[in-house]
Amino acid sequence: MLVECVPNFSEGRDPTRIAALVSAIASVPGSRVLHQTSDPDHNRTVITFAGEAEAVLESSVRVAARAAELIDLNRHSGVHPRLGALDVLPFIPLGPTTLADCAALAHRAGQRIWQELHIPVYFYQSAALRADRTQLEKVRKGEFEGLRASVLTDQSKRPDVGGPALHPTAGAVSVGARDILIAYNVNLATTDLAIAKSIARSIRASSGGFAGVKALGLPLVSRGQVQVSINLTDFKVTPPHVVFAEVSRLAADAGVPVAESELIGLIPSKALAMAFAHNLNLPNFGTESVLENCLSQHSWLK
Amino acid sequence: MLVECVPNFSEGRDPTRIAALVSAIASVPGSRVLHQTSDPDHNRTVITFAGEAEAVLESSVRVAARAAELIDLNRHSGVHPRLGALDVLPFIPLGPTTLADCAALAHRAGQRIWQELHIPVYFYQSAALRADRTQLEKVRKGEFEGLRASVLTDQSKRPDVGGPALHPTAGAVSVGARDILIAYNVNLATTDLAIAKSIARSIRASSGGFAGVKALGLPLVSRGQVQVSINLTDFKVTPPHVVFAEVSRLAADAGVPVAESELIGLIPSKALAMAFAHNLNLPNFGTESVLENCLSQHSWLK
Repeated sequence: MLVECVPNFSEGRDPTRIAALVSAIASVPGSRVLHQTSDPDHNRTVITFAGEAEAVLESSVRVAARAAELIDLNRHSGVHPRLGALDVLPFIPLGPTTLADCAALAHRAGQRIWQELHIPVYFYQSAALRADRTQLEKVRKGEFEGLRASVLTDQSKRPDVGGPALHPTAGAVSVGARDILIAYNVNLATTDLAIAKSIARSIRASSGGFAGVKALGLPLVSRGQVQVSINLTDFKVTPPHVVFAEVSRLAADAGVPVAESELIGLIPSKALAMAFAHNLNLPNFGTESVLENCLSQHSWLK
Repeated sequence: MLVECVPNFSEGRDPTRIAALVSAIASVPGSRVLHQTSDPDHNRTVITFAGEAEAVLESSVRVAARAAELIDLNRHSGVHPRLGALDVLPFIPLGPTTLADCAALAHRAGQRIWQELHIPVYFYQSAALRADRTQLEKVRKGEFEGLRASVLTDQSKRPDVGGPALHPTAGAVSVGARDILIAYNVNLATTDLAIAKSIARSIRASSGGFAGVKALGLPLVSRGQVQVSINLTDFKVTPPHVVFAEVSRLAADAGVPVAESELIGLIPSKALAMAFAHNLNLPNFGTESVLENCLSQHSWLK
């Protein structure tokens, strides 16, 4: 049962701490680190790893412990919303693995994180136990500083496992199960945050924009830019190239150039094939025409 | 020693014959057919298959025999230049296999095609035995009808193996070794062949256009279009998205819309990643960020 896991940590500046997080994951035989991205303005690191479910589960608990040792949210600042040292811990099915398998794994991880580390847990998306916790942004609303207070007075804010008080330095972990998501940012050559916020509002599903799009406008002080920070939760419906074209159009309307865009983590081959088919007017093109995809289906390649 | 092979056949209309060619290739254990494309105007079929070198060699000889049984060049017409029933037979290295390995395989295939089938052979590109035969278009110049006569009178036209007379119905086979090539066509919504020929001339390397680009202007009578038929022999230098943009620009200058483009055979993932990075302004993007590429490097995926 193969599973991908994409933990997000509230540390994006200190290379030694980031390396320690990667090492904690890789310390479990069978867990393979596939990718990592850190951003100093977000002050956040995203690590992608994969393996058999039991190895991935063990890595996720070990790295939750290491993050709690290394990260004190009272001393953390960054432009991206966060609630925990290990902030989010999503499990994603690979191959024949199902979302239900991943939800069960998320629940086991959450129980262990509370029992072994005394860090409370919220379950989100396909692992949610309550309808109002399917959306991660609602779970995380108020962030560490706000939720720390409200969990003690507002019953509806209490964690799904443990608590009610948040961990004093590590906060809480949002543990989820979900399908593949593309984290994709478009950076604008301006320091005018209002423009990024306005474009984010135009494209996100919750404001009537594209289906499967979440977006925030964030400042990137270290680069002198602003960012439209985007999650594509259903890239087959709204792929990156469609969002890029629309953000570019809206930025041009505002008189602002696109500086560059960036991917956080990995992207499925199909999203590239969709962009290629669109941009080169190739109506009959799909991933079945990609050499590596054809070859990887034949075990003699190994 | 893994090898890819992309034979081109002078038959693109009769599904029964085309299926017989595929069957001949697949009749060898270990040879896997990955892709096939047929075009009625070209009257040509391109099949992509791969496997261990010995299996690929055996398949290539079997399908050369089957093509000679099924195809009579005296009754063949199509817009694409051709010299043989099995017209070209390139061997392409996969993984650690080298071009030299593929040249050796090409020479063995050529010897067998002459000895067992009495079809003469020209060696081209990295399998060429003469400097003036590295370019396939020079080997094929005059096509079946022209070379059939000139081989008898012009010493310089003689096949590398067998002959000098061409096979009366199967012509000759051009057997080569080469790196990955992208066969890519842009179809224009006009019947004015001069426009396609002019664009082909503008973009091809031999007329001072893009490096690694071969191009012809061809009519597509069945579709009421013309085609800029392109081979990209070094896609890392000149990738499809660059050629598409230039053909689109030249077509627009001529007042003609691009109807669509099409790939013949497979495309390497890197070409998609290059287009994605360009079209979405992603300066740091490469195939190491593609999920499937990461996963296929880990044997536990199987």
